[in-house]
Amino acid sequence: MSLDYRRFQSDSLLETYKLERDRIKKYTSDLPVTTNLMGLYPELDYFKWAKEIDVISWDNYPSINTPISMTAMTHDLMRGLKSGQPFMLMEQTPSQQNWQAYNALKRPGVMRLWSYQAIAHGADTVMFFQLRRSRGATEKYHGAVIEHVGHEHTRVFKECAHLGQELQTLADQTMGTRVKAKVAITFDWENRWAIDLSSGPSIALDYVEEVHKYYQAFYRKNIPVDMIGVEADLSQYDMVIAPVLYMIKDGHADRLKTFVTNGGTFVTTFFSGIVNEADLVTLGGYPGELRELVGIWAEEIDALDPTVKNHITFDKRYGKLSGKYMCSTLFDLIHSEGADVLATYQSDFYAGMPALTRNQFGKGQAYYIASSPEQRFIDDFVAILQDEKQLTPILVSDPGVEVCAREDADQRFLFVINHNKEQAHFHTGEHGYADLLNDQSYHGLSRIEGRGVLVLKDKNRETEERQ
Amino acid sequence: MSLDYRRFQSDSLLETYKLERDRIKKYTSDLPVTTNLMGLYPELDYFKWAKEIDVISWDNYPSINTPISMTAMTHDLMRGLKSGQPFMLMEQTPSQQNWQAYNALKRPGVMRLWSYQAIAHGADTVMFFQLRRSRGATEKYHGAVIEHVGHEHTRVFKECAHLGQELQTLADQTMGTRVKAKVAITFDWENRWAIDLSSGPSIALDYVEEVHKYYQAFYRKNIPVDMIGVEADLSQYDMVIAPVLYMIKDGHADRLKTFVTNGGTFVTTFFSGIVNEADLVTLGGYPGELRELVGIWAEEIDALDPTVKNHITFDKRYGKLSGKYMCSTLFDLIHSEGADVLATYQSDFYAGMPALTRNQFGKGQAYYIASSPEQRFIDDFVAILQDEKQLTPILVSDPGVEVCAREDADQRFLFVINHNKEQAHFHTGEHGYADLLNDQSYHGLSRIEGRGVLVLKDKNRETEERQ
Amino acid sequence: MSLDYRRFQSDSLLETYKLERDRIKKYTSDLPVTTNLMGLYPELDYFKWAKEIDVISWDNYPSINTPISMTAMTHDLMRGLKSGQPFMLMEQTPSQQNWQAYNALKRPGVMRLWSYQAIAHGADTVMFFQLRRSRGATEKYHGAVIEHVGHEHTRVFKECAHLGQELQTLADQTMGTRVKAKVAITFDWENRWAIDLSSGPSIALDYVEEVHKYYQAFYRKNIPVDMIGVEADLSQYDMVIAPVLYMIKDGHADRLKTFVTNGGTFVTTFFSGIVNEADLVTLGGYPGELRELVGIWAEEIDALDPTVKNHITFDKRYGKLSGKYMCSTLFDLIHSEGADVLATYQSDFYAGMPALTRNQFGKGQAYYIASSPEQRFIDDFVAILQDEKQLTPILVSDPGVEVCAREDADQRFLFVINHNKEQAHFHTGEHGYADLLNDQSYHGLSRIEGRGVLVLKDKNRETEERQ
Repeated sequence: MSLDYRRFQSDSLLETYKLERDRIKKYTSDLPVTTNLMGLYPELDYFKWAKEIDVISWDNYPSINTPISMTAMTHDLMRGLKSGQPFMLMEQTPSQQNWQAYNALKRPGVMRLWSYQAIAHGADTVMFFQLRRSRGATEKYHGAVIEHVGHEHTRVFKECAHLGQELQTLADQTMGTRVKAKVAITFDWENRWAIDLSSGPSIALDYVEEVHKYYQAFYRKNIPVDMIGVEADLSQYDMVIAPVLYMIKDGHADRLKTFVTNGGTFVTTFFSGIVNEADLVTLGGYPGELRELVGIWAEEIDALDPTVKNHITFDKRYGKLSGKYMCSTLFDLIHSEGADVLATYQSDFYAGMPALTRNQFGKGQAYYIASSPEQRFIDDFVAILQDEKQLTPILVSDPGVEVCAREDADQRFLFVINHNKEQAHFHTGEHGYADLLNDQSYHGLSRIEGRGVLVLKDKNRETEERQ
Repeated sequence: MSLDYRRFQSDSLLETYKLERDRIKKYTSDLPVTTNLMGLYPELDYFKWAKEIDVISWDNYPSINTPISMTAMTHDLMRGLKSGQPFMLMEQTPSQQNWQAYNALKRPGVMRLWSYQAIAHGADTVMFFQLRRSRGATEKYHGAVIEHVGHEHTRVFKECAHLGQELQTLADQTMGTRVKAKVAITFDWENRWAIDLSSGPSIALDYVEEVHKYYQAFYRKNIPVDMIGVEADLSQYDMVIAPVLYMIKDGHADRLKTFVTNGGTFVTTFFSGIVNEADLVTLGGYPGELRELVGIWAEEIDALDPTVKNHITFDKRYGKLSGKYMCSTLFDLIHSEGADVLATYQSDFYAGMPALTRNQFGKGQAYYIASSPEQRFIDDFVAILQDEKQLTPILVSDPGVEVCAREDADQRFLFVINHNKEQAHFHTGEHGYADLLNDQSYHGLSRIEGRGVLVLKDKNRETEERQ
Repeated sequence: MSLDYRRFQSDSLLETYKLERDRIKKYTSDLPVTTNLMGLYPELDYFKWAKEIDVISWDNYPSINTPISMTAMTHDLMRGLKSGQPFMLMEQTPSQQNWQAYNALKRPGVMRLWSYQAIAHGADTVMFFQLRRSRGATEKYHGAVIEHVGHEHTRVFKECAHLGQELQTLADQTMGTRVKAKVAITFDWENRWAIDLSSGPSIALDYVEEVHKYYQAFYRKNIPVDMIGVEADLSQYDMVIAPVLYMIKDGHADRLKTFVTNGGTFVTTFFSGIVNEADLVTLGGYPGELRELVGIWAEEIDALDPTVKNHITFDKRYGKLSGKYMCSTLFDLIHSEGADVLATYQSDFYAGMPALTRNQFGKGQAYYIASSPEQRFIDDFVAILQDEKQLTPILVSDPGVEVCAREDADQRFLFVINHNKEQAHFHTGEHGYADLLNDQSYHGLSRIEGRGVLVLKDKNRETEERQ
């Protein structure tokens, strides 16, 4: 009932939106209609909303301690709402928010950095809330292009003006280009609601955090990811990762099986395949409809205070991964039913039971991770996947240097964004690139200044195209 | 008014119960009627309810960090509701709960351990909630004998089945036998409510915790305790302990005086004897109606942040207790009015004032503890009482090994329960015993495996009986 | 709207008071009417109330961990409500409160100490709540002159009786005398409400704490302070300090400018001059109406988690203040517009920007402190002010020894109050004094016992007066 109430709430608001949209369309049927979404906002099922919206637009308000990879993931999720179509960065603050506990200023250069990050992940606009700081009411301390002082001689105004000039230089070169990804991560609002509303097994399970851990492992390697809903077409991907896929909607398990049968790699985790769309448990053994696909049976699910840790160790065939990795929160007690056991628990009464398995299914493989491991485990696990599936980074770079790509049939743009305060390095590989912002060329091991941004165009590719 | 509202709430629900019971009795007057109580549940005055219930039944759902002695105390309290009559363990989970923050699995063997603990403390049934895990709604992650997988090839099912076979072996041998205790600890819901509702002197005072500290001191020594209400007949006891007996109901002080006059030992603490049943202070000096009995006057009651500690030191006649003991939370500033001062405060402006007193009253003695001391103090104080009153343990055992006894005119059963994961020892004394579960015999220093249970029968006694 | 609702709430209750007062005045127009105020109680604008009250009376209930300087500040605020007119200490507990979390006893001598502190700050009465402890209801554990025991042989009664005898000795000598201060600190309830209700920049900003930091710096130096409202006449002061003067009411900025023009010293801080009485931002650059006076422009206001620290270093001309001082919470990024930069930030992107400025304005000076520094900074800053303005302490004393003065045209009384448990020293300077409580004389370096109180009369002054 609580879950249906959530659905009702989301749908009711969507109905209101549709009423307004339909009235507008009656008079301006040629103009696209949107409404500003809010990223990971928990209350609305944006995949359902997206069907009624012409172009996705959203408001990006990270906290000072939001991981930059979480912002990246949110951009990708917004892009995924309409299957990769470019979106609008509708709102961001030029500097400061007002509704956080402590509303830090965006440090010099950070607003520019985050604006390009939006573009790099698929935005075709960079817009601000607000132009002019209001004199009164609740948002009067929300940042603005024009501060209360009223003139343009401010750090914030100058940074906005400078960004505007740069974007004018870029003109519409990148507009309409797409992000291409071979890896997809599943995100589903109804799944999230069902997990959050569940009484047991643990209040510490955070769906968004679990999804983000997997996202981050690819992010750190500059491997692009699509964030997709549970109805997405999977045929374009090499790999689909569905962390904590608690709720299996009608037909989803079949689509996943087809995907793996045809050679795809599927990864899922503990507390997956448990219920159907009505939040009724799929009887016959966890992970329910996924059991055959992953080739394991989860007999029990232990839930411990998150401060209590178990550890995972890899099988000796993974010689270089010889350490142990912390895991916590939930612990599936699984039995292999054909799956290969790649790693096991190290302690508690289920020491030696599988913690990571791989099941051959048709031409593909399905992985199951039985607990919530530390990030280092997922990073190393993703490196294994990367080797197996020949996933290559766009570019190799220092930590904190994000590299994204947008392309269309004719062109390809690389975005190199240094989130560090200090200068850092990246490597262009065999290609040479020209920066559209500063007209410099880059080839091989290259330097980028602290909080620097490069918009690179592939010289070879252009040459190829011209030939 | 708040206190009377609590009474009204408890009574209203009890009236509802009575309506249902009376209707049932009309048709099946020969069948006993019960309702599942919930141990230390704060809202209902179970001593009042017990008068309307034929047989006590209760639901035992300890948290993973509930002290095992707290569970023991709760069993004894449930048994005390009807003056020692055997009760029913109506509900326990075979493995996991669902409404805790983190719902840990019961480790292998623990369900069996806790089932025997219930029997050892007076249960005549061991029952489970639930047979089969529900598919939907709020309790779908509550443990069950039959898991969602639906078959019997699970750890949990096997442990339940094994326990069932054992209990079949035991058959009805222990049924109807009683726990015999010479020590009683008073527990009163209305007292608890009045303390919880009091504005001042300290929000840190936790009545249940204070009672448990005294209970635990006996528990650790394998000395059986009856948990009794304030209306109980005291004549069968050698010792009555009433921690924080804040509210003195009509006639209770007189019954306590008669008990001590006739040679009984009475122990009470700070913040006792303060109010009458209407929560009106008994004027004329704390501890009011108990003042003559304990032979002291509490002039003031200091209340400090629980992180602030004072210390208690014993009088030098207790040579072996030469250390100092922490105390905290509340500090009565007492003057002896005839009582012997056994220990004093060590610091603050009441350094040197009595912290523990003993008053000769008729043939008996009344003790007063002026503050809330650490467990070690109470353990050592109870050791003094034990010497004075010749209270002997059922058996001597290692820490974590609980020993209980049930008996009737013909037989006596000892339950030895090792709550440790590792093996431990106990000593049978001069008697020899046979275990009803594994047919082994025990005499003298004996070993019990980790999480092991023995149900011992006294060989000598049987012999004696037969002679 | 929220701010106006607060005003409405305060005004509504004030209207109720006035209805009652007017009815009383109809029959006893010659008798003064009061109602017991509660110091720093947030909900009521006591400066507005004071206009309708004949004599201020208030209830002083510090927690065990309330800084003694906070109690002093509250006394001064209550005295300031009617421009220095002596007030009534209407309520204090003889020993214990009942509504705190942990209701500690007032240690021996402390009730006397705090009673004299009230007198020292301008009280003409010392009264208690309550005479006799009630038997029932919510305040039955609130301290009383007569405890529940009902007789006078208690520590608490004896301390009250002894104080009564002393006050009888003092008789009405000090009554009607005034505290004279050359320093005023501004306090405004509407300013407090507006800050508390503001959405941004930081929830960590605590107006009362900020005001108290400045108060404390003078308190530690035994320099008397008047706590004044924003309508107060400033002409009698050498220095006016207005911490976080967020809201500038009509005409206030002009009065401050006149004050400084005529030679006064004005001190204000970050997040000042921001809004007008309607909580609308004063456009044109922070600190709005104060900008010309302080000679700076605050371009931005950074807000960081209070655990994040920046540091302030003084300009090298303040050679002896060579260390660095922590600051936190809010950080104005200011530009001097004529003001002298006395200290700067040490880190973050605004390292080197001004943190403390002084602006010459007419014959006077206006200081601006751009962040919330640790107490040590304010202590050292106030020492600079003290030198510049020749502010001398009443007497020099050890830490924890408070010295206040009350006087009228004919007499001057010094109160020396040792809040330490141990004896301490003070220095009478060149004058000799006689203690009215113990008839001893003091001259030069003098000793005061732990928790001791002296009420000194200036021998020289009396001599002078007689001549």
